[in-house]
Amino acid sequence: MLGATGAVGQELLALLEERRFPVAELLPLASPRSAGQELSWQGESLTVQPVQAGCFTGVDLVLASAGGSVSRAWAPEAVAAGAVLIDNSSAFRLDPDVPLVVPEVNPEAAFRHRGVIANPNCTTILLTVALAPLAARRPIRRVVISTYQSASGAGARAMEELRQLSRTVLDGGEPVSSVLPHSLAFNLFLHNSPLEPSGYCEEELKMLHETRKIMELPDLRLSATCVRVPVLRAHSEAVNIEFSEPFPVEEARALLAVAPGVELIEDFGANRFPMPTDVTGRDPVAVGRIRQDLSEPNALELWLCGDQIRKGAALNAIQIAELLCGEDEG
Amino acid sequence: MLGATGAVGQELLALLEERRFPVAELLPLASPRSAGQELSWQGESLTVQPVQAGCFTGVDLVLASAGGSVSRAWAPEAVAAGAVLIDNSSAFRLDPDVPLVVPEVNPEAAFRHRGVIANPNCTTILLTVALAPLAARRPIRRVVISTYQSASGAGARAMEELRQLSRTVLDGGEPVSSVLPHSLAFNLFLHNSPLEPSGYCEEELKMLHETRKIMELPDLRLSATCVRVPVLRAHSEAVNIEFSEPFPVEEARALLAVAPGVELIEDFGANRFPMPTDVTGRDPVAVGRIRQDLSEPNALELWLCGDQIRKGAALNAIQIAELLCGEDEG
Repeated sequence: MLGATGAVGQELLALLEERRFPVAELLPLASPRSAGQELSWQGESLTVQPVQAGCFTGVDLVLASAGGSVSRAWAPEAVAAGAVLIDNSSAFRLDPDVPLVVPEVNPEAAFRHRGVIANPNCTTILLTVALAPLAARRPIRRVVISTYQSASGAGARAMEELRQLSRTVLDGGEPVSSVLPHSLAFNLFLHNSPLEPSGYCEEELKMLHETRKIMELPDLRLSATCVRVPVLRAHSEAVNIEFSEPFPVEEARALLAVAPGVELIEDFGANRFPMPTDVTGRDPVAVGRIRQDLSEPNALELWLCGDQIRKGAALNAIQIAELLCGEDEG
Repeated sequence: MLGATGAVGQELLALLEERRFPVAELLPLASPRSAGQELSWQGESLTVQPVQAGCFTGVDLVLASAGGSVSRAWAPEAVAAGAVLIDNSSAFRLDPDVPLVVPEVNPEAAFRHRGVIANPNCTTILLTVALAPLAARRPIRRVVISTYQSASGAGARAMEELRQLSRTVLDGGEPVSSVLPHSLAFNLFLHNSPLEPSGYCEEELKMLHETRKIMELPDLRLSATCVRVPVLRAHSEAVNIEFSEPFPVEEARALLAVAPGVELIEDFGANRFPMPTDVTGRDPVAVGRIRQDLSEPNALELWLCGDQIRKGAALNAIQIAELLCGEDEG
């Protein structure tokens, strides 16, 4: 495990235990800065080791969540040592030799790996889990998405900053951010990943390119607006999906009700649909408010929420590992 | 002033003073429940009077923000007494005999009133201020919107509940809401206005029908997803606009840069675009991140923020009153 001390690393540890993943020996690795920390896992205390030459000898599986530069630096050595590396960073996602896998969507791709398998961007994972069962029925022509992304997507320190600055505002103070570019306390802002010449930010283009790759729809038309909101760890998405022909709402609802990884939260009588608090710390992508788009006969609108750290990152990586082991996904 | 003690009423009082609106005498009216309260205005203390028969005698202008049922009950008497009633509720907005006015968009409509002028829904006001300068250049074919609406849209008590429940969460407690249907603390949810058979909620359909009326585009195709977010008093909107032909981004930017009521906040170099905190307590609708939609040659994407209580309600009502008085809008 590479990056064991981060928010995703911590969730990976919890999930390995919770899902009884077959682990003979767990080796927590992190940057030299974090090495020496003690982690508790399955009742044992483990000391975080620094990632260094030779550390992958005898390792079968590397779960990497320490960022793109660390993955890029150490993947060749891990693969040379015979390990399969499941990488949570964006380093290899669009590499044609690296499968980009959401187990509910394209499990078969995982088996075409050459040592590295990429875990997609969080918003893309949640989106494709909901799109795949619909796309299997009728071709998708265009998708327009607005996201509501939690602080966790920027890491554990961003979550802590949101808590601290919220208290500052409640106490009448002036919030000054240092982790995120602006205070997220009772505020929100467009995702601050680097902007491309198109005017889209990297996060939005990840949704475009990764969705195309995962769904094997290289010409899919998709436009996203990614927004950071003052929620702690679950992302939400408003999704407008245009198909090649009308898609009856009841049929879409029936498909999503039984789709793997999806939980329908949709009670029109009670006006009750998915919320971040419904999925925090939970596995499914919650979907609801599926409705015929009043502005376009071929389009549906839907709303979804998913835990960013869990299905948006750690859970998806563990599910990929389970696929490779032939484990039941439970 | 009818509904003087609410969040919008308080802002109306502040704006009348700030904008030096010509007021010979100000009569604060409210429900019998709120009557007797003391309000401070222009250094004077005013006692809130109960709304009752005969109370509009000699009144020229009624600014109503006490909800639809109060407006419906008292508008006929106010009009019969010779007053013009500018109504902030949804009671008369779609009445063909009542103008629905955003002064930057359709000022001429205000002069066709028969005693009542309706102030549009907050999200609609902000949207139309940004759409109008673009629609004047090229016909709009379809608009897809996702909103990020602050607690203030549900009133002063919802704002206070957000503050209180945020503190509960920070202190490790379980937030239980009583004003809003769910806790908004570090959470968000789809707008809880009543659902129509279409699966859209009233708030979303207000955006459709009110935008059509204000912009005099009865066939405009528009689909909205309205979401309540844990922000105190400014709304944001992600807007996808499809035109009848391609609309060069630079041209749209140039039009919006000089459009009345719009402030462009768009620094691609610094990755700096509108945020709720930019517009809180301020007049303009802040617009930015205008970009060519990568998924549709005829579409633009843009992002906007506006103060819900101010331009989304009180300011727009005062601007309508200023129009009628022939006042400069400042």
